[in-house]
Amino acid sequence: MNRNPHVAVVGATGAVGIEMIKTLEKRNFPAGKLTLLASARSVGKKLKYRGQELAVAELKKDSFGGIDIALFSAGGSISKEYAPAAAQAGCVVIDNSSAFRMDDRVPLVIPEINAADLKWHKGIIANPNCTTAITLIALYPLHAAFQCRRIFASSYQAVSGTGAKAITELERQVEQVVQRQPVTREVYPHQIAFNVLPHVDSFLPNGYTREEMKMENEGRKIMHHPTFRASVTCVRVPVYRAHSIAISAEFERPVTVEAALAVLRKAPGLDVIDNPAQSEYPLPLYLSGKYNCAVGRLRQDCALDNGLCFWVSGDQLLKGAALNAVQIAEELIK
Amino acid sequence: MNRNPHVAVVGATGAVGIEMIKTLEKRNFPAGKLTLLASARSVGKKLKYRGQELAVAELKKDSFGGIDIALFSAGGSISKEYAPAAAQAGCVVIDNSSAFRMDDRVPLVIPEINAADLKWHKGIIANPNCTTAITLIALYPLHAAFQCRRIFASSYQAVSGTGAKAITELERQVEQVVQRQPVTREVYPHQIAFNVLPHVDSFLPNGYTREEMKMENEGRKIMHHPTFRASVTCVRVPVYRAHSIAISAEFERPVTVEAALAVLRKAPGLDVIDNPAQSEYPLPLYLSGKYNCAVGRLRQDCALDNGLCFWVSGDQLLKGAALNAVQIAEELIK
Repeated sequence: MNRNPHVAVVGATGAVGIEMIKTLEKRNFPAGKLTLLASARSVGKKLKYRGQELAVAELKKDSFGGIDIALFSAGGSISKEYAPAAAQAGCVVIDNSSAFRMDDRVPLVIPEINAADLKWHKGIIANPNCTTAITLIALYPLHAAFQCRRIFASSYQAVSGTGAKAITELERQVEQVVQRQPVTREVYPHQIAFNVLPHVDSFLPNGYTREEMKMENEGRKIMHHPTFRASVTCVRVPVYRAHSIAISAEFERPVTVEAALAVLRKAPGLDVIDNPAQSEYPLPLYLSGKYNCAVGRLRQDCALDNGLCFWVSGDQLLKGAALNAVQIAEELIK
Repeated sequence: MNRNPHVAVVGATGAVGIEMIKTLEKRNFPAGKLTLLASARSVGKKLKYRGQELAVAELKKDSFGGIDIALFSAGGSISKEYAPAAAQAGCVVIDNSSAFRMDDRVPLVIPEINAADLKWHKGIIANPNCTTAITLIALYPLHAAFQCRRIFASSYQAVSGTGAKAITELERQVEQVVQRQPVTREVYPHQIAFNVLPHVDSFLPNGYTREEMKMENEGRKIMHHPTFRASVTCVRVPVYRAHSIAISAEFERPVTVEAALAVLRKAPGLDVIDNPAQSEYPLPLYLSGKYNCAVGRLRQDCALDNGLCFWVSGDQLLKGAALNAVQIAEELIK
């Protein structure tokens, strides 16, 4: 791989695309060139990168000649249509959609956990689901130490996970409520302002949503743990940015809060914020814009003989998307 | 008990007190007389009841002569100070605080579950914690049918559970955010607008909050199930009214979604709203002001061999407080 790769961002004008550009710049990623691609609607828009204004070009099948790394975040159907063509052209695709995550030929990677899986990529690498990534950043070190059997998790997911339009929807609805006007909806099936929706992504025949099943399916693949079980309820909350997850985890080996804290304090990409007596615990409001996720409220689980209960928050546009993709790109040029 | 009892509401001007007065009126409770009591600060305030304006009187140890039933909702320390004096004066106290809930001499009652426990009261009856009450309205019928072993639960709790001042705090913070002013705090240790706080009530040495442990402790007493286990994370969310709880429940007996739905459809105080394909599930916004709680998103639990995952919402000022107290009063005069 070229040490100063030509990088493309596909879906450059979306909520995650914008964070990808910012993250490349902030982390001083040594891109030789940056190309911004999006649908025809966005062509001509200009985005700032290292003091320059870069124009957005139209995404086409032949956009990828000479591009070394393409960060895709334009939805699953765009990835399915364009990622194979990009890989064919010699470009390494890092795809933020769910299109290829469970494909056996595609590594699904959180660099802090399974960077080694990057070795066997065939042109496409998948970035995990945001809620899964934030959970695993705390769970995996505990799994490595104590062997996780299963988890029970409930999420508190920010609207920016849905995209830029959902941020606008929450802002508009809040204004409507404050001004006692009728509340209008465009993105979510119900009002999100001053409400919570137990509905993220679409429903499967088993009654779980796709989002909920990603924790078990992607967790198994990322942790190389084929018997990992996860029962998850994913809930959208009126928070702009950063997801949180309440987790009960059962382990094979004996575990104490002290031993778990010792493991988590050394874990990469993670801060421990756990001083409840001083009202210190991870909060989505304070973790917005942060690279590291945070874990806190660690306690011996009341309903498991060998379990821990804890709370994780993290910026789902960063560790849950853009940051993880850029970290994968950093691994590729090492 | 007098069929037209003289009723007192203690803490009449609080968020729950106001709902108690409204609920007595709406349910046509046959009170012979209604006396409103509160601290000296609130004396002289007037509250509407059946078209009249009733003045609030000062709560004193000798306030209870001639009163048959006193609904207390003025906090644990007020209950501890005044409830025994009221009981001594021959009044039956229905106490919404946590002061007497775990006292062996005091029945802790959800009428749909354990109305029979009212028989052995000695002058004080405890009303359960709001999150516990809403959870048990759905869990108890399943326990009766399938024998619940343990649950894993995460809550999404509205600010009105904290009281009238917290409603004002959320309103004010939202205005401050909308107008790009600095956000001020008085009630919660952190901003609640556009945030979630994994902190409801105070922390115990085991790392859980008091609120979280109420589910197991009060659940055991109400369900007469001394080995019931509950691992709970209680989280405050920027919702004005109605709590929601995501639950994974393990049972001794085999359970299917169909069998559980059949049980829940017959359960008192509960509606089934479970048509996810049409985006129909319980939502706190729609359950505000409703007497019945609602359950939905029923599914076979992914991480339990004999378990169900589901979602419950309910108005914590009503079923979680005022309604349950008035229902107990209704049982007393039957």
